[in-house]
Amino acid sequence: MQRALSVTRERFADWYQAVVRDADMAESSPVRGAMVIKPWGYGVWEQLQQELDRRIKASGHENCYFPLFIPLSFIAKEAEHVEGFAKEMAVVTHHRLKNIDGKLQPDPAAKLEEPLVVRPTSETIIGDAFSRWVKSHRDLPLLINQWANVVRWEMRPRLFLRTTEFLWQEGHTAHASEAEAREETMACLEMYRAFAEEVLAMPVIAGEKPENERFPGAVGTWSIEAMMQDGKALQAGTSHFLGTHFAEAQNIRFQNDAGGMELCHTTSWGVSTRLIGGVIMTHGDDDGLRLPPAIAPRQVVVVPMLRDKPEDAEVLAFCQKLVSSLAALTAFGQPLRVLLDTKKIKSAEKRWNWVRRGAPVIVEIGPRDTASGAVTYMRRDSLRDGDKVKSSAMPLEEFVGFAPSLLADIQATLHAEARARLAGNIKAGVTDWAGVESYFAGGDDDFKGWLRVAWSKPSGTELDAVDTKLKALKLTIRNAPMDQPTSFAACLFTGKPGVQEILIGRAY
Amino acid sequence: MQRALSVTRERFADWYQAVVRDADMAESSPVRGAMVIKPWGYGVWEQLQQELDRRIKASGHENCYFPLFIPLSFIAKEAEHVEGFAKEMAVVTHHRLKNIDGKLQPDPAAKLEEPLVVRPTSETIIGDAFSRWVKSHRDLPLLINQWANVVRWEMRPRLFLRTTEFLWQEGHTAHASEAEAREETMACLEMYRAFAEEVLAMPVIAGEKPENERFPGAVGTWSIEAMMQDGKALQAGTSHFLGTHFAEAQNIRFQNDAGGMELCHTTSWGVSTRLIGGVIMTHGDDDGLRLPPAIAPRQVVVVPMLRDKPEDAEVLAFCQKLVSSLAALTAFGQPLRVLLDTKKIKSAEKRWNWVRRGAPVIVEIGPRDTASGAVTYMRRDSLRDGDKVKSSAMPLEEFVGFAPSLLADIQATLHAEARARLAGNIKAGVTDWAGVESYFAGGDDDFKGWLRVAWSKPSGTELDAVDTKLKALKLTIRNAPMDQPTSFAACLFTGKPGVQEILIGRAY
Repeated sequence: MQRALSVTRERFADWYQAVVRDADMAESSPVRGAMVIKPWGYGVWEQLQQELDRRIKASGHENCYFPLFIPLSFIAKEAEHVEGFAKEMAVVTHHRLKNIDGKLQPDPAAKLEEPLVVRPTSETIIGDAFSRWVKSHRDLPLLINQWANVVRWEMRPRLFLRTTEFLWQEGHTAHASEAEAREETMACLEMYRAFAEEVLAMPVIAGEKPENERFPGAVGTWSIEAMMQDGKALQAGTSHFLGTHFAEAQNIRFQNDAGGMELCHTTSWGVSTRLIGGVIMTHGDDDGLRLPPAIAPRQVVVVPMLRDKPEDAEVLAFCQKLVSSLAALTAFGQPLRVLLDTKKIKSAEKRWNWVRRGAPVIVEIGPRDTASGAVTYMRRDSLRDGDKVKSSAMPLEEFVGFAPSLLADIQATLHAEARARLAGNIKAGVTDWAGVESYFAGGDDDFKGWLRVAWSKPSGTELDAVDTKLKALKLTIRNAPMDQPTSFAACLFTGKPGVQEILIGRAY
Repeated sequence: MQRALSVTRERFADWYQAVVRDADMAESSPVRGAMVIKPWGYGVWEQLQQELDRRIKASGHENCYFPLFIPLSFIAKEAEHVEGFAKEMAVVTHHRLKNIDGKLQPDPAAKLEEPLVVRPTSETIIGDAFSRWVKSHRDLPLLINQWANVVRWEMRPRLFLRTTEFLWQEGHTAHASEAEAREETMACLEMYRAFAEEVLAMPVIAGEKPENERFPGAVGTWSIEAMMQDGKALQAGTSHFLGTHFAEAQNIRFQNDAGGMELCHTTSWGVSTRLIGGVIMTHGDDDGLRLPPAIAPRQVVVVPMLRDKPEDAEVLAFCQKLVSSLAALTAFGQPLRVLLDTKKIKSAEKRWNWVRRGAPVIVEIGPRDTASGAVTYMRRDSLRDGDKVKSSAMPLEEFVGFAPSLLADIQATLHAEARARLAGNIKAGVTDWAGVESYFAGGDDDFKGWLRVAWSKPSGTELDAVDTKLKALKLTIRNAPMDQPTSFAACLFTGKPGVQEILIGRAY
């Protein structure tokens, strides 16, 4: 069978690279680990960003912008934070270049007194601003978000999944009470869960990270975990309860009702361009990307089949009528996004370009359609019937009326397909290590899902031992899902009474 | 008279700082020259960005994202570019921190082989991508834009106007012919002019920069120049025709119809957060900021006058009815932006906060209004009648019907006021240097407009002499306006026949 990609999902890592390249999503840049996000990939980011931004604002948060550079001394203030991040930061040491002996280089006379770190995350610099903004309990809660680029040096970069520079949003909030800050942490986790399911059509499990996987400096970290088509987990978003750690380090205090000074309780939470990698590995197939209509930069693409003949004008006029009718509609609460592809390349090439890019609905209009007044379209979510490409046709007016529900149906179909995969590949009932070994036995490209097992929630060195044991099989604890039973099997690791169920799997 | 600010425009520099601070727009950060943009200031940026983004996309450009870091060797490729930018760049030299003798510092073992520069602008790194993307004439024109942060080290920073890090958009395009690239350069200049006038209500003069003020590496640079309330010019946007300079340095070539290889002609163009400084200095008054409704994060702010009494509930219900009626309306093609200010501070304090922040319409609702069903409102563009604050009242339904045209009228009034100032303060007819000296004589805080004079368009050392002469009076050539007469007076500087009229003034 002729496929639109040169590699199938059987070689999953190669397939991923091929989709990113052939769907025009992104490419490597001359700067190690930093990517160029191309128009189609950036278009996905814009859609995703706009919808998440609406939700962030609707829950009372305001956007700000904080400096890219963080003084080294700020990072040094929070000990655990240093430990967790100090190993992978870009450091600015000079503020001028100079031509010395015919070679452009950092000017020794322009060495900074204190080096600056390119933000890997902004708890410290935002905390510093909070310390000025919060004076009284009347200033609380302080609910802030920023959309920004961040840098964490990556030795083994992968486009979207792990890049030295990436784009994200980071929410930062300060509260008068621990209870309120914990509530915020959970509300943001739920915001991410609903966003992943409803907008990205990407099912996730929300839950708490084990102690050893916490954000450096956090009291508790929660995540949403998605299952990719190779069975591996992708941590797709995190929400942290920071207690008073950062408030102490950055001196964020408020005057309470009684006139006394108290430390704030803070939170932070973020999702990044990594989500795009998750969308690719959740929905892509052997013909390329399949985009959920809610985030597709173009939901319907109209390809006119032109032959440099007189009837071309009629075909174009028909296409333009279709496009303007569709553009007047609403889908997912926003104007429907439709494109007339008039690029001067062959229409067959256009079809396959849009298949690879994952446009949800591809319409092809030739002289025969114009004559009959019909619209011939393909659904990207169910492109083929056996080996053959499947298309349907209906009168133009009917198609226009049908388009919004067609897009909603594609969104729902992609979601249901991914949800079935997630639900069907979390195995419960394994109670001993031999069961773990047998479940995860086999080659690297064999599909493995996750195990859901009971444990005694060990900590410290006892947890380290669990971690080491898991790492030997390339496994990690993903999270402890929010929905827990009322009674538990014995701990698979310690044999002690179980107190929680956790998910175990391989991960990106 | 009681003013909402502690300083008037008579001390313009101090006044500017007071507005930025008291309108909650931005503040200095611990990182020298980098600012924190606060929610109200960032809200203005978001409005401005969304509307400009719509215009950029409507003219066929697509958004992308390119790396923050640029290899030093890229910068070194374009000689003039090096000359113009090499003096003010942040340089990353290490990719890890290490605790050495108890002090966190750049890890000597993690020194980069080639230093990375934090982008001051992206011609070189985007040109590198273009060299991969452009193969044939069918790939042209390539019309790309990015929204990003950039860094140019500033020794004398001023919030919004001149900061080490700032936010901007940079458009980059490649074309098959010089004519098409020049047309693009002019179309983007016109896009900026229309945007400044229609959206920011900030009148500008579009024109070409003299040779010595060109972007490093450009063949020609055009700008829009706005006049601030102290008479100084603010360069508010630039559009560059780059010829084949960057195409040569980055090897951007295409195969033409005949199969031969040709260099592309490229352009670049940008506006930045500096525009916000321009809005402040164009529209602010002695009570603070006055925001054009088209970019105000909240166009109507409703302040309930609560007294901790039973009638509070009625007041709030009335306010909510008003707010939901207004939120259902459209203004400037977007949903009307209205806020009910329920913060727990005194209503008088709220009023003055919103006056300082420049909310276009401020509504105050007390028990008396609720009883009569009336809405009492203030227009921020014409806040006072003599010394007194002016307010009007009308029935709720009438006010709701009236609100969109009220906002349009405020937008038009601010624009007309600023346009009159610009038009009335460009003096023509000065033909000798003594006239220049006399026009610009007086103290630093005296209002000076601009002169419009004829010149012979000298270049090289002859232009340098003009530049030196002007600099002695702190003057620069702003631009040569697009609309030029057909005949010219003799050159004010050289005495030769005039060929062009230029604007001369002091500038930010």
